[in-house]
Amino acid sequence: MIMNSRKVQILEINGDPMKIIILGFGAVGQGVARVLSVKKDYLKKKYGLNPSIVAVGDRSGAAINPDGLDEELLLKTKEKTGKISSFPEYGIPGVESINILDEVEYDCLVEVTPTDIHDGEPARSHMIKAMEDGKDVVTSNKGPLALSFQELATTAQSNSVEFKFEASVGGAMPIINFAHETLAGCSIESIFGILNGTTNYILSRMANEGSSYEQTLSEAQELGIAETDPYQDVEGIDAACKIVILANSVLNLPATLKDVEVEGISRITAESIALAKKEGMLIKLIGEASPDTLEVSPRLVRQGSPLAVEGTLNLATLKTDLADEVTVVGKGAGSVETASAILSDIISVWKVRK
Amino acid sequence: MIMNSRKVQILEINGDPMKIIILGFGAVGQGVARVLSVKKDYLKKKYGLNPSIVAVGDRSGAAINPDGLDEELLLKTKEKTGKISSFPEYGIPGVESINILDEVEYDCLVEVTPTDIHDGEPARSHMIKAMEDGKDVVTSNKGPLALSFQELATTAQSNSVEFKFEASVGGAMPIINFAHETLAGCSIESIFGILNGTTNYILSRMANEGSSYEQTLSEAQELGIAETDPYQDVEGIDAACKIVILANSVLNLPATLKDVEVEGISRITAESIALAKKEGMLIKLIGEASPDTLEVSPRLVRQGSPLAVEGTLNLATLKTDLADEVTVVGKGAGSVETASAILSDIISVWKVRK
Repeated sequence: MIMNSRKVQILEINGDPMKIIILGFGAVGQGVARVLSVKKDYLKKKYGLNPSIVAVGDRSGAAINPDGLDEELLLKTKEKTGKISSFPEYGIPGVESINILDEVEYDCLVEVTPTDIHDGEPARSHMIKAMEDGKDVVTSNKGPLALSFQELATTAQSNSVEFKFEASVGGAMPIINFAHETLAGCSIESIFGILNGTTNYILSRMANEGSSYEQTLSEAQELGIAETDPYQDVEGIDAACKIVILANSVLNLPATLKDVEVEGISRITAESIALAKKEGMLIKLIGEASPDTLEVSPRLVRQGSPLAVEGTLNLATLKTDLADEVTVVGKGAGSVETASAILSDIISVWKVRK
Repeated sequence: MIMNSRKVQILEINGDPMKIIILGFGAVGQGVARVLSVKKDYLKKKYGLNPSIVAVGDRSGAAINPDGLDEELLLKTKEKTGKISSFPEYGIPGVESINILDEVEYDCLVEVTPTDIHDGEPARSHMIKAMEDGKDVVTSNKGPLALSFQELATTAQSNSVEFKFEASVGGAMPIINFAHETLAGCSIESIFGILNGTTNYILSRMANEGSSYEQTLSEAQELGIAETDPYQDVEGIDAACKIVILANSVLNLPATLKDVEVEGISRITAESIALAKKEGMLIKLIGEASPDTLEVSPRLVRQGSPLAVEGTLNLATLKTDLADEVTVVGKGAGSVETASAILSDIISVWKVRK
């Protein structure tokens, strides 16, 4: 009798695992594995959530185990070999990502493959398939959302699955869930903010050091803050993707990337920044979404305003009917930081499903 | 038959009302009535919530109607006569606030009487009684929370009622629900921020205009930004109350007001601000809560950091394990702004109860 009641208790505490497939195992995917490993006890204790990674896919193939893959061994395998398909015993070279979704039973797809802003693939197809199979989807993938938000949202709705994408806008600046949950009583009228950390870093340094755009960009590239091909960041495309996601998800505007007027920072001179500074102003790359405007462009902001934050920080301000302007500031990038937003989404999916 | 099915539909749409008693009918209480009036359709449509104010109490007595009091007439009565007890037909002069809780059936107490930081009364007794009667409580009242947080939280828990107090910390800067809901996957390690709008305004003006503390304070008083007796604001007591509430509710530290080391801004000189400015720094009144520190004091902050916001804005930064630092900026005061936080709490109580 005692043995029996102890058994029951253990089962109750562990609960059914939430089976997760991670597609894409770069910085963000690895961050998710790390976070799920580190927070295992926390998640079990606080939410009764017992996540189990049953498959991971990357360019090399997959690692698949219906009973769960050890997170630390996933990370070690990727770090040592660069290929998730080298995972001991459960590695499968050459399998296509989309086929992994048919190989193993799961509850939730975490879609974190490299983003593509031309056709949103293969992420778009991964997510649509998962939704049509009745699975919940959590993603950080900007491309497919900026191109096909309405298709994805409609597919999620018609298949009664959860579709969460907090990490797609500014990593650890959780503005979407903030708008929906925390500001529950307010209507959001418009959104504006600094949605790209690389350009904020470049403009901040130009203002502080009086350096030229070209020189500052190449310093940022040396530091790994700007990419070798910085086009999508410095020309405002990355910020424009985020504006589209915010317009759709917070303002219910069915926009896509081509609806956004975009101007980047590559023509900003040290002189124009110095001139602004004399008047107590800074130049920032600001994205704005409202029923009238979808735009990314360099704008003057007042020193001392919430928009005046420096460095790689991201920031979004919600203009509301009741609470006036409310702003969230956070890190826009980083493996574990972005994974923290994915984890919040996984928890909220779990709360709906449990 | 057709008549019948239409009736059923109407009943379903309207739903049972959530019966609310508002104790205290100053700026915040009136803001709540205004917000419930303005957002009636929104609340019904979005949440199926049909709030009904069944009683309001102020120093003069009460207005009580089990079938609900008209919000606009409540506001007009208060504006014209200064007394809620003059409410046509349903006004009752002289009734003590605490007795109103026995006069009418209700679901949720909104406690917004003037705050008292010496014994927390009468708000503390109002809330304890409501909880012991099995009613949910929403409040903006700092005093009783800063003095008796644990007693109130325990009473709520042992009576299985909801206890929500977002509006007690920085009006429309929704940091508590943000920490609990939006950052669900993160552990919060410490909190720091600008928790008082009056002092932020004074310090910002001193920095921008080089004016003295005394002169700036009296200008702020003329503008209605500082109170005639500014003691609690300028000496850091108000910010210290908020630090206690954040320590208890976000960090699970059982602190009270006497545990906070407090230093205000009344000894800050124009010279010290000018000196800081030369080094690219500002002086701000910063509150901090961590397992090691409960403190309110003037500190140097770097220009360009999120803490450098000017004017009457409030701000709180959460230091987390996964998302690094995340900051929320918003209006710290204002009738409708504060009421918006109360409304978010009412909605979250409703979500639990419905």
